Amino acid sequence: MSNWYSVVGNENDIVVSTRIRLARNLKNTPFPSYMNEQDKKALNEKVKNAVLNSDTPYAKALKYISMEDVPENEIYAMVERHIISPDFAKKTEGRAVIISEDESICVMIGEEDHIRIQVILPGLALNKAYEIADSIDNLLASKLEFAYDNQLGFLTECPTNIGTGLRASVMLHLPLLESGSAINEMAETIGKIGFTVRGMYGEGSKSKASLYQISNQITLGITEKNAIENLGVIVGQLIARERQERNQCDKIKIEDMVYRAYGILKNQRILSSDEMMKLVSRLKIGVSMGILSVDSVLPVKILIETQPYMLCRKCGEKTPQERDILRAETVRNLIKENV
Amino acid sequence: MSNWYSVVGNENDIVVSTRIRLARNLKNTPFPSYMNEQDKKALNEKVKNAVLNSDTPYAKALKYISMEDVPENEIYAMVERHIISPDFAKKTEGRAVIISEDESICVMIGEEDHIRIQVILPGLALNKAYEIADSIDNLLASKLEFAYDNQLGFLTECPTNIGTGLRASVMLHLPLLESGSAINEMAETIGKIGFTVRGMYGEGSKSKASLYQISNQITLGITEKNAIENLGVIVGQLIARERQERNQCDKIKIEDMVYRAYGILKNQRILSSDEMMKLVSRLKIGVSMGILSVDSVLPVKILIETQPYMLCRKCGEKTPQERDILRAETVRNLIKENV
Repeated sequence: MSNWYSVVGNENDIVVSTRIRLARNLKNTPFPSYMNEQDKKALNEKVKNAVLNSDTPYAKALKYISMEDVPENEIYAMVERHIISPDFAKKTEGRAVIISEDESICVMIGEEDHIRIQVILPGLALNKAYEIADSIDNLLASKLEFAYDNQLGFLTECPTNIGTGLRASVMLHLPLLESGSAINEMAETIGKIGFTVRGMYGEGSKSKASLYQISNQITLGITEKNAIENLGVIVGQLIARERQERNQCDKIKIEDMVYRAYGILKNQRILSSDEMMKLVSRLKIGVSMGILSVDSVLPVKILIETQPYMLCRKCGEKTPQERDILRAETVRNLIKENV
Repeated sequence: MSNWYSVVGNENDIVVSTRIRLARNLKNTPFPSYMNEQDKKALNEKVKNAVLNSDTPYAKALKYISMEDVPENEIYAMVERHIISPDFAKKTEGRAVIISEDESICVMIGEEDHIRIQVILPGLALNKAYEIADSIDNLLASKLEFAYDNQLGFLTECPTNIGTGLRASVMLHLPLLESGSAINEMAETIGKIGFTVRGMYGEGSKSKASLYQISNQITLGITEKNAIENLGVIVGQLIARERQERNQCDKIKIEDMVYRAYGILKNQRILSSDEMMKLVSRLKIGVSMGILSVDSVLPVKILIETQPYMLCRKCGEKTPQERDILRAETVRNLIKENV
């Protein structure tokens, strides 16, 4: 079965992915950072049984994995595939995930909160992703009792999540807004109205490949649906602005930039991660603007599958130079397969 | 019929071309700069008759062209094809050439000296080029009386040519000697023993595309054959040094550099002359080192045929930006035809 990022999503000229995350905690149970080994085991069992022993389609479609059984390289490769959070990868003891085959659904057990339901889908899919997350939330709620306050809403370890426990985020490819520096000004405005603009791997990460994650900041005093609707409006505006820039740009200059990047990616023999991201961004412009006729999922596929751990999970340790040579080869092969 | 640069020459991994030039003047006749229109006409007729009315193979193989009949763009394109000297191109009044179909032989009439016989051949071909130049020299000497002094040899307008009137030069591609800066030190040494290292278009021109012209400086007190032999020795040493560097280099880095240049050249849409030269140099390394399997004459073909006047001689005036787009297209087509 294909990974989520091998499927063509809506508005995929600009939107790479949509992610919904719900944070939930069990009633009368200490937060994971206060739990001992025994508590964690019990938590994992409870969540596992709630999902896998249910009479829902999820019982068959999802798989329980103890993080202690996952090799270290593969754990970081899971971060690179956007399945688990960087924070979740830092410790493995007593942590587990429940995951779908295409890795679009991942329930992290024992991160900052007891349960974090994550749904990631290609393209713009706020409603669909929310529906899936919500149905898993309902399934869990039918079997477990959540920590919930009638005034505040869902209780979470970090106060920034209290209320809905929802973080919705959309990853946008905004190369032309970035090159005109409009993105900085927009990020500031967006920040003032309760949204955040971040880099590719969430909090604290820088934007690479002109990818920006826009997410809601407010969880308190708002419904989940309203939060998602508001994010949809902001994202719609960014998409429109980026498309406008693309329509107004100097076509031959963009074509030249795109074809050069394509020519290099197809031919190079040593490729650093940073350069790969820069070139993939240009490849994506080319695909999105109809300049190149390659599979539209190719840029994101290259982007994810040539991250350091994704590259090395199948072949063990590599020096940085060996990795750059392996990345070069992997990119050339991916292009060959997807043209 | 193909141009001289479309033919594969000897040692063509490093040697682009070999040029022999003989300067000759008629006895008891003022140098061209002192000639009036009438004198020039008479000179042209004399030289024309000597060659074209002879019973040698040259009578049929060569063509007389008055430079006054050549369009301005085409004159500069002739310089770019290395058929005539930049100095010869500056004025057209009363000047003429006698030229072979592949343009490897060109007798310039009325440059600095009355007659300049030039033979340019692909690859290393000092003896062959000299033989051809010598036979045309003999043909002319059998019909015309040259200004000759028993002590000094052939008399020329500029004292630097007195004696043999011979300038032999070899164009070498020395990217690895250049990148290690060894070329500067070698140029100095070569200069001390009577040879000159120059850029691609002769005197005063800078090296581009890592191309260096090595030529003899001494014309007095030496035979033509000795001058050529000495140049051959110097060139042989440079070839050996460059090959040594190529054998010792980091193969994967060179491959990466070569394939990137190839990828860009095959795909770009806007290409300046300077960038073209840089990339063609890398393409030539790739062909010479057996990294790329493209026609071995392709790099020099691109280099010559996408010079500004070569590009525009068929399509009239262009802005620099239009020219860069036309160059990009021409390069892509040349690669398609020669792979």
